[in-house]
Amino acid sequence: MRIGIVGGTGKEGTGLGTRWALAGHEVLIGSRDPERARARAAEVGARISGARVSGASNADVVRAADVVVLTVPATGLQATLPELREPCCGKVVISTVVPLTFGGGRLFTPPPQGSAAEEAQEILGAEARVVGAFHHIAAHELEASDHPVDCDLLLCGGDAPAKALVTELGASMGLRAVDVGPLTNAGALEGLTAVLATINRRYKLKNSGIKITGL
Amino acid sequence: MRIGIVGGTGKEGTGLGTRWALAGHEVLIGSRDPERARARAAEVGARISGARVSGASNADVVRAADVVVLTVPATGLQATLPELREPCCGKVVISTVVPLTFGGGRLFTPPPQGSAAEEAQEILGAEARVVGAFHHIAAHELEASDHPVDCDLLLCGGDAPAKALVTELGASMGLRAVDVGPLTNAGALEGLTAVLATINRRYKLKNSGIKITGL
Repeated sequence: MRIGIVGGTGKEGTGLGTRWALAGHEVLIGSRDPERARARAAEVGARISGARVSGASNADVVRAADVVVLTVPATGLQATLPELREPCCGKVVISTVVPLTFGGGRLFTPPPQGSAAEEAQEILGAEARVVGAFHHIAAHELEASDHPVDCDLLLCGGDAPAKALVTELGASMGLRAVDVGPLTNAGALEGLTAVLATINRRYKLKNSGIKITGL
Repeated sequence: MRIGIVGGTGKEGTGLGTRWALAGHEVLIGSRDPERARARAAEVGARISGARVSGASNADVVRAADVVVLTVPATGLQATLPELREPCCGKVVISTVVPLTFGGGRLFTPPPQGSAAEEAQEILGAEARVVGAFHHIAAHELEASDHPVDCDLLLCGGDAPAKALVTELGASMGLRAVDVGPLTNAGALEGLTAVLATINRRYKLKNSGIKITGL
């Protein structure tokens, strides 16, 4: 599959891109700055023999992609997404975005829509097939590509075929997918990432994750 | 320890009481209706040889308890807690309360304070030592007391000795505790329970739980 990663030069985007390139997908790394995207793509590509990884502007990446992944900071959604509304139309858009505020009173700070995924859905319009997923897969764990990621892939959204595609993308990097319902549950999934971020800080880890038991 | 469970006639309160009675703690089951509390206490006590389980009004239970556990519905906090403010003063108060709204558009519906735990803290006042915990330990799993609960105990709060006591209470029923920071993270923990409730419904389970990996 041809996977376009918006804001893909950050740690989460680069980690996901690395795992997907290893799985044989074509990875397009997007950035506001196409030069930066190309440099990061070259780095990722150089580490994986036979990898298909390239870089371009966010808009060019979305236009060329079969599936779009948002890995921008939550504060960047309002600036980044409006120009992507038309190219995202009809496409599966995976939001990995988590609205965290470090150093304030409260770590998890969702927008009025309830979650970053619902904010993205609002900006991109109803024809973007938004799925919330991958937030809680630690970037550090993704980049340590010598071993499988020890975490379940929790995902939510209103479009069943879109969720099936995300389930496949997870399976291609060895993750078990767990469907946690509609996009109105995205806030709970994003909040879980705040929990894992706190655990990482408190226990001096970089890669805490979760597994669902009883399943 | 003498554990007072406010609203303890419900499934979660009864399940927790059963596990703690099995671990040798004295369990006080509270209810608005002391008769109902005594009946439920007799039921739990009859199942466990040597158990110390009794029932009384919520206020009497809190007065007698070393540690207080809130297992009332989220919608009951405003009605139940004001009369418990004085007897909760100085005590560890564990909030297991989760603001879920079934059948609406959004399952997790936290109050303006950010979480039920923070709402409880506001009503009980600063001298109640509120810890958020046990929300996500399935009642069904607690009641199936023939096997260990397959779930980590995530807890949060601003009072380190209070969290140490909750860690002990968890350990007494075989749970590994994971400290997830201050009470401002309680919304994220409560939201996680919405995720597990959705998983239970979607996968036809009664006892999904979570384990933190990488720890």
